[in-house]
Amino acid sequence: MAKADTVRKRAPLKIRRPPVGASPGTLIADPAARRSELRLTLISPEKFKTIDNASIDELNAHCEKWPVVWLDCTGLANIPLIEEIGRIFNLHPLALEDVVNTGQRPKVDFFEDHAFVVMRMIDDVTAHRYEQIAVFFGKNFVVTFQEREGDPFDPVRKRIAASMPNRLRSRGADYLAYALIDAIVDSYFPPIEAAGEVVDGIEDQMLNTPHKHQMRQLHELRRDANVLKGVLWPMRDALATLIRNDVPFVKAATKIFFNDTLDHSLRLIELVENQRDMLTGLIEMHLSLTQARTNDVISYLTIVSVIFMPLTFLVGVWGMNFEPESSPWNMPELKAYYGYPAALLLMLVVAVGLVAFFRWKKWL
Amino acid sequence: MAKADTVRKRAPLKIRRPPVGASPGTLIADPAARRSELRLTLISPEKFKTIDNASIDELNAHCEKWPVVWLDCTGLANIPLIEEIGRIFNLHPLALEDVVNTGQRPKVDFFEDHAFVVMRMIDDVTAHRYEQIAVFFGKNFVVTFQEREGDPFDPVRKRIAASMPNRLRSRGADYLAYALIDAIVDSYFPPIEAAGEVVDGIEDQMLNTPHKHQMRQLHELRRDANVLKGVLWPMRDALATLIRNDVPFVKAATKIFFNDTLDHSLRLIELVENQRDMLTGLIEMHLSLTQARTNDVISYLTIVSVIFMPLTFLVGVWGMNFEPESSPWNMPELKAYYGYPAALLLMLVVAVGLVAFFRWKKWL
Amino acid sequence: MAKADTVRKRAPLKIRRPPVGASPGTLIADPAARRSELRLTLISPEKFKTIDNASIDELNAHCEKWPVVWLDCTGLANIPLIEEIGRIFNLHPLALEDVVNTGQRPKVDFFEDHAFVVMRMIDDVTAHRYEQIAVFFGKNFVVTFQEREGDPFDPVRKRIAASMPNRLRSRGADYLAYALIDAIVDSYFPPIEAAGEVVDGIEDQMLNTPHKHQMRQLHELRRDANVLKGVLWPMRDALATLIRNDVPFVKAATKIFFNDTLDHSLRLIELVENQRDMLTGLIEMHLSLTQARTNDVISYLTIVSVIFMPLTFLVGVWGMNFEPESSPWNMPELKAYYGYPAALLLMLVVAVGLVAFFRWKKWL
Amino acid sequence: MAKADTVRKRAPLKIRRPPVGASPGTLIADPAARRSELRLTLISPEKFKTIDNASIDELNAHCEKWPVVWLDCTGLANIPLIEEIGRIFNLHPLALEDVVNTGQRPKVDFFEDHAFVVMRMIDDVTAHRYEQIAVFFGKNFVVTFQEREGDPFDPVRKRIAASMPNRLRSRGADYLAYALIDAIVDSYFPPIEAAGEVVDGIEDQMLNTPHKHQMRQLHELRRDANVLKGVLWPMRDALATLIRNDVPFVKAATKIFFNDTLDHSLRLIELVENQRDMLTGLIEMHLSLTQARTNDVISYLTIVSVIFMPLTFLVGVWGMNFEPESSPWNMPELKAYYGYPAALLLMLVVAVGLVAFFRWKKWL
Amino acid sequence: MAKADTVRKRAPLKIRRPPVGASPGTLIADPAARRSELRLTLISPEKFKTIDNASIDELNAHCEKWPVVWLDCTGLANIPLIEEIGRIFNLHPLALEDVVNTGQRPKVDFFEDHAFVVMRMIDDVTAHRYEQIAVFFGKNFVVTFQEREGDPFDPVRKRIAASMPNRLRSRGADYLAYALIDAIVDSYFPPIEAAGEVVDGIEDQMLNTPHKHQMRQLHELRRDANVLKGVLWPMRDALATLIRNDVPFVKAATKIFFNDTLDHSLRLIELVENQRDMLTGLIEMHLSLTQARTNDVISYLTIVSVIFMPLTFLVGVWGMNFEPESSPWNMPELKAYYGYPAALLLMLVVAVGLVAFFRWKKWL
Repeated sequence: MAKADTVRKRAPLKIRRPPVGASPGTLIADPAARRSELRLTLISPEKFKTIDNASIDELNAHCEKWPVVWLDCTGLANIPLIEEIGRIFNLHPLALEDVVNTGQRPKVDFFEDHAFVVMRMIDDVTAHRYEQIAVFFGKNFVVTFQEREGDPFDPVRKRIAASMPNRLRSRGADYLAYALIDAIVDSYFPPIEAAGEVVDGIEDQMLNTPHKHQMRQLHELRRDANVLKGVLWPMRDALATLIRNDVPFVKAATKIFFNDTLDHSLRLIELVENQRDMLTGLIEMHLSLTQARTNDVISYLTIVSVIFMPLTFLVGVWGMNFEPESSPWNMPELKAYYGYPAALLLMLVVAVGLVAFFRWKKWL
Repeated sequence: MAKADTVRKRAPLKIRRPPVGASPGTLIADPAARRSELRLTLISPEKFKTIDNASIDELNAHCEKWPVVWLDCTGLANIPLIEEIGRIFNLHPLALEDVVNTGQRPKVDFFEDHAFVVMRMIDDVTAHRYEQIAVFFGKNFVVTFQEREGDPFDPVRKRIAASMPNRLRSRGADYLAYALIDAIVDSYFPPIEAAGEVVDGIEDQMLNTPHKHQMRQLHELRRDANVLKGVLWPMRDALATLIRNDVPFVKAATKIFFNDTLDHSLRLIELVENQRDMLTGLIEMHLSLTQARTNDVISYLTIVSVIFMPLTFLVGVWGMNFEPESSPWNMPELKAYYGYPAALLLMLVVAVGLVAFFRWKKWL
Repeated sequence: MAKADTVRKRAPLKIRRPPVGASPGTLIADPAARRSELRLTLISPEKFKTIDNASIDELNAHCEKWPVVWLDCTGLANIPLIEEIGRIFNLHPLALEDVVNTGQRPKVDFFEDHAFVVMRMIDDVTAHRYEQIAVFFGKNFVVTFQEREGDPFDPVRKRIAASMPNRLRSRGADYLAYALIDAIVDSYFPPIEAAGEVVDGIEDQMLNTPHKHQMRQLHELRRDANVLKGVLWPMRDALATLIRNDVPFVKAATKIFFNDTLDHSLRLIELVENQRDMLTGLIEMHLSLTQARTNDVISYLTIVSVIFMPLTFLVGVWGMNFEPESSPWNMPELKAYYGYPAALLLMLVVAVGLVAFFRWKKWL
Repeated sequence: MAKADTVRKRAPLKIRRPPVGASPGTLIADPAARRSELRLTLISPEKFKTIDNASIDELNAHCEKWPVVWLDCTGLANIPLIEEIGRIFNLHPLALEDVVNTGQRPKVDFFEDHAFVVMRMIDDVTAHRYEQIAVFFGKNFVVTFQEREGDPFDPVRKRIAASMPNRLRSRGADYLAYALIDAIVDSYFPPIEAAGEVVDGIEDQMLNTPHKHQMRQLHELRRDANVLKGVLWPMRDALATLIRNDVPFVKAATKIFFNDTLDHSLRLIELVENQRDMLTGLIEMHLSLTQARTNDVISYLTIVSVIFMPLTFLVGVWGMNFEPESSPWNMPELKAYYGYPAALLLMLVVAVGLVAFFRWKKWL
Repeated sequence: MAKADTVRKRAPLKIRRPPVGASPGTLIADPAARRSELRLTLISPEKFKTIDNASIDELNAHCEKWPVVWLDCTGLANIPLIEEIGRIFNLHPLALEDVVNTGQRPKVDFFEDHAFVVMRMIDDVTAHRYEQIAVFFGKNFVVTFQEREGDPFDPVRKRIAASMPNRLRSRGADYLAYALIDAIVDSYFPPIEAAGEVVDGIEDQMLNTPHKHQMRQLHELRRDANVLKGVLWPMRDALATLIRNDVPFVKAATKIFFNDTLDHSLRLIELVENQRDMLTGLIEMHLSLTQARTNDVISYLTIVSVIFMPLTFLVGVWGMNFEPESSPWNMPELKAYYGYPAALLLMLVVAVGLVAFFRWKKWL
């Protein structure tokens, strides 16, 4: 668990809002957005075709001829292109605005002939960067928008390319949308489980040698868990909305599959909530271990002080300069034949007595 | 993050109630209210006209002739004027009372032919002062009341003045009301994000050198977040009420836009809740850092005490005045040839031994 | 804020239950109840009449002849009188039992021809004593029962006596009931706002000089807030019930007014919740200030100990009695020409070095 | 408040489950169950008759002839008897199983012609032992099962025996059931109020002299409150279920009475929640009082150390044995005429200066 | 309570997900899964027959001839076998996938002619290992899948084998499913009650001698309780879903029994929640006991320091070497006749005075 020792650098959840004064529904590109690239996947039960770096013309040419069209747009810088896609598939302007202004809460909106689903994926496991993925789907198309290259859709692509019988090719656009959304949800499992292992590593370390830096790690992990919770809950809500509503372009048979995705999202929330509870418990335990340690150290100090203070007082007494010559009352013990050994013995008795007392008090 | 170092002065959320004994629905001006000024904006799809410092006569003259009239009243001191506006637009007396008695919870009330929306805006980012903005809207009018000059409506005004095609001018009064309310909600983003940055700044500082004053700042920020939460939740509820109810003067198409505003308010709540969680975590961490520090200091004290106490005892022993002359048992070591170096060596051994013991105990 | 320094004496919330074995619906007077006094207010749109110390006969005589009758009964000792009132207005026996057994939760019950509302008012601002006020209202009567003299109804009485047009006289019994209930709810604002100021005062004090007694005050204020919350929530629920139910003796127009009262109760709850959050934050901060102080004191102790312990050891060394006469190895420094100044210098160097070390460690 | 000083011994909430492998609906007696005894109360509006130690034959003989029959069975050891009762009144086997397996959650189940209500009473105020009371009621019978003698039904018995007009005799079986359930709920008031007084007693004590054992008492009281909460909430839910459902054997008029019982259960929950809040506050305050005390003690230690350490160092300096004979630089002050008084004065100045410093720092 | 002293080793809740890229509904065996074994129980009201290590052929042969068939499949490695079972009983592919991918949240899914229930049982009481049990049931069959041998179904098997009248044999498949699910739920009682006893043991120990390791145990127990809560809540939800939905293969009479199981699950949740509250309370109390102990130790240190510091200073004063020969002002007390006894007496007086002071301050 080497990772448990290094303080990870969080990337803050960027929220992108349109510039002040922009009319709702008007698309304005984020200056930091990547160049848009289209990848068109044309699907029929019998065959399929993928066109990388597709153009709008190719889109127009193929769009109507295939039972299911999946257009995947990576990078959100090219506003006219996005507007053109919106026109071709008749996407709602407000939804397109949410595509461009990334950092939206996961949600589902239903329009007349298509649904609009905003999801968020973990972009980079170690940096906890999130990326917005927007999914539109209607009767015969799925359009996905992502901020950057890199997505959890490769398994879906492989399954589209798999030999017959092929459910992904024969079940229509809503099933394809399900497959994509399911892939996004499932991509949360590995990082969350990895975080669980980091927590276990810190716990083991902490019980052996509690250290200040663990506190910091625990706090950072708890914050990560809070952020995750804030992403997963609206995803769950969006999935529930998708299942609850009856719209013509989502088949009842597909809803059973979406239900499965909902179960997974609930399981993820459960995992994260559990991790949070564990982290809160560990933070409390860390505090109590620190306090126990303070207690130990103070006990130690007390024992040493309480033993040596009387002894130091005694040697001080016999170091006083009262003159035996002036009076027989003045420190006659200094002249006694066994004075010094007797004094040492007395001090030994005092020390041993105090140690015994501490033993009896169970402070040692 | 220079701001993180200075203790900000909160302005308490003023609640204005009518004087005791006033009949409900009777308007009584707040003595501190500003002089009322009217600004009339007349809107039709083709053209628009703005009249600053409008009079009631001008209002009466233009009111019926334009498809949409937006009357913006700044300052609530002029009760007869407000009553006259109420009569012209047939506004409910109880709603008008809420306009004058500022500090109302954000809410929506539906009356026969108009809706009444109470919102709150942040008046001044640094002082966290809030201002009530009341919005009435019916079939062909929008009336807004604000306490002071300065509002988040400038973008809306610019969009009204923008060239054709102009949704704000063509979509009717409910869309204009949406644009205004949306502008109010969106005006919360900048201060909340700024607070987030202040929190990050304090966190960085704290992890380097924990200091008492940070605790105070964290508490103040958490209180600010609590106040914000208390403002944002009823705003969210009001928006949800607006969408849920079917009234003739809110078109279904406009509800989709209000839905977008609702999303923004949820995002704001999420941001504030996240900030609160972070602040609570930081406060806990501050406590534990302080405690760890106490622990360090006590350990240090203990180590020094435990090393020097036995040594001081030993030098005390050899500083005793038992007379070697009186008895051969009395401190013969004082006369030994290597007595002093041997004593120093013994003390060195004791000190080194204790240091080694502490190393072994991992206290150093 | 002199009040902030004195520990207030709470009066516990008295709950009055009927004696064991009493049949439900049988009225048994609280031995501590005050002598009942009736005040009859007869209201018509044109005129009104108030009869203090009214008798049952007067009640019977006037009851039927006026459009609205308000009977206010102060003191609950006179059971036959209360039963007689119940008979005249046909009040439900269980409701009458709740009138006599004070300390009920605020609630609303609907019976065939009247509603029964239990409210609670703050009887004494400084002692936080609560008093139950029961309000019955039907088509043409309002009956109120209070435990003691002193109520928040004076503004209502003044408004009844006000000249025409007079809504309170013309709008019927349900509007009068609203006015009374609204007056009770609004009477919570002043004490809650006063408590807010006390909290602010303690906060200022605390940040200057934290003191043990503040902790106690904060705890007491939080308890007060808890009690208040426990009173306000059922009042809110009762108001919501009143608005939600359709009964013939509450007009729709009056419900708009009750809605306003509901808003006020929500505002009160918000204020109290906010106060509680603040108090919890202050209690936490007080703890952390105390801990920071402990830390300071311990640091101080440590610094002084660590500086003086080595010095005391050194002077102890040179106070040993090894005899220089017996051996040239025995403490030759005692006879050195600059021995004493050198020793003092050495100690100064040690002290200055340790102080520099603490500066570097930022402990000073 | 002598009770506040003794640590009470809790009796754990016994849960009785059927032996493994038993078929649901098969009754198996708890070996610890008491011998069953029947008490039959026969009720008509005109007269009533009580038969102690009734037999099944007597039950059969009278059952049909009286309008209302109340059979109270104390002790659950006699399974054949209980099964026979079940047969006579046609009680559901699963319900009978819940009767025998005590420790059920309070609940209501409706069967075709009877309702089954599980309640829990506090059996012994000081030991916080709970006892399950099962109430079956149908059109013309009420059957109650209790674990042991001792119940809160005596007031109901007295009211049955009271002279005419007698609601309990004339209102039917559902009203009798209400009276019994109401008696159970009301029996919670005395112990909860007594606990409240114990809490107040501990609080007073604690503010005077905080002590470790109070912490323990506070924790135990909070646990008691938690257990009570866990009993009262399902009782409330059961009552709400009873009122919400429309069944032929519960009259609408009786529901108004059950509503009253529901109010009482809400009041109880409120009381207990309030007590819990108070206890949590007191536990926090106890911790902070302890910490304040630690702070005081450490301050005291620091002050004494800081005053005496420099003084001890000084007397150590003048106790060094540098020989004035060897050099004029060696400790000439020892021979000075006013050397000793000057040294004492210097030490006094140091001591006074430090005390003044502490005063100024407000540590004294 | 020997167990309370040893730190138990938790087995983490394994979640098994399908390999990346697998199509939903495709079964892929967990490499760690056990070899599948079938046990076929054929049930009719009159007789029953059990076939261990049944083959698919035997299943096909008997399946149609008996009114109720219970197929229990232990071990999930044999995917073709499981798929074959799915075909025979027409089980939904997604449900079968959940069977194979263990670690699902407890849930209920309804398909056209069967229900699918996922439950979780505690596999090993001491290691808190959980095992998924999947139950399918339709009109005339129950199919159960478990990960390993060992289940809580033995009582059910015994009841099937019991002599007539036998409800389990005569009430159909839904009642059998109920009996199995009820057995799973009831199997939670023993371990939860055992955990309760461990908690009580630690509490007793802790109040006698608080120790660091108890803190750890309390934290582990609380975590166990959290995990349990996370298992029990979805089980409760699944049972509620089962009761709420109307499907042809669950009879109304059986729902009454499922209701009983729901009650048990609520009781379990209550027990666990109570345990969590107790554990949180104990963790708090442990902290406060530790702090009280620190307080004690520091008080002890302070008392000893405060007594000996002045004494050590005094003996230091009289150990100074001011020369009485040089001046009558220099330490004349050293030559006084009763100098030494007087000094000792003075020190005694100081010590006794300080002890008395501490007594008075109640620090001893």
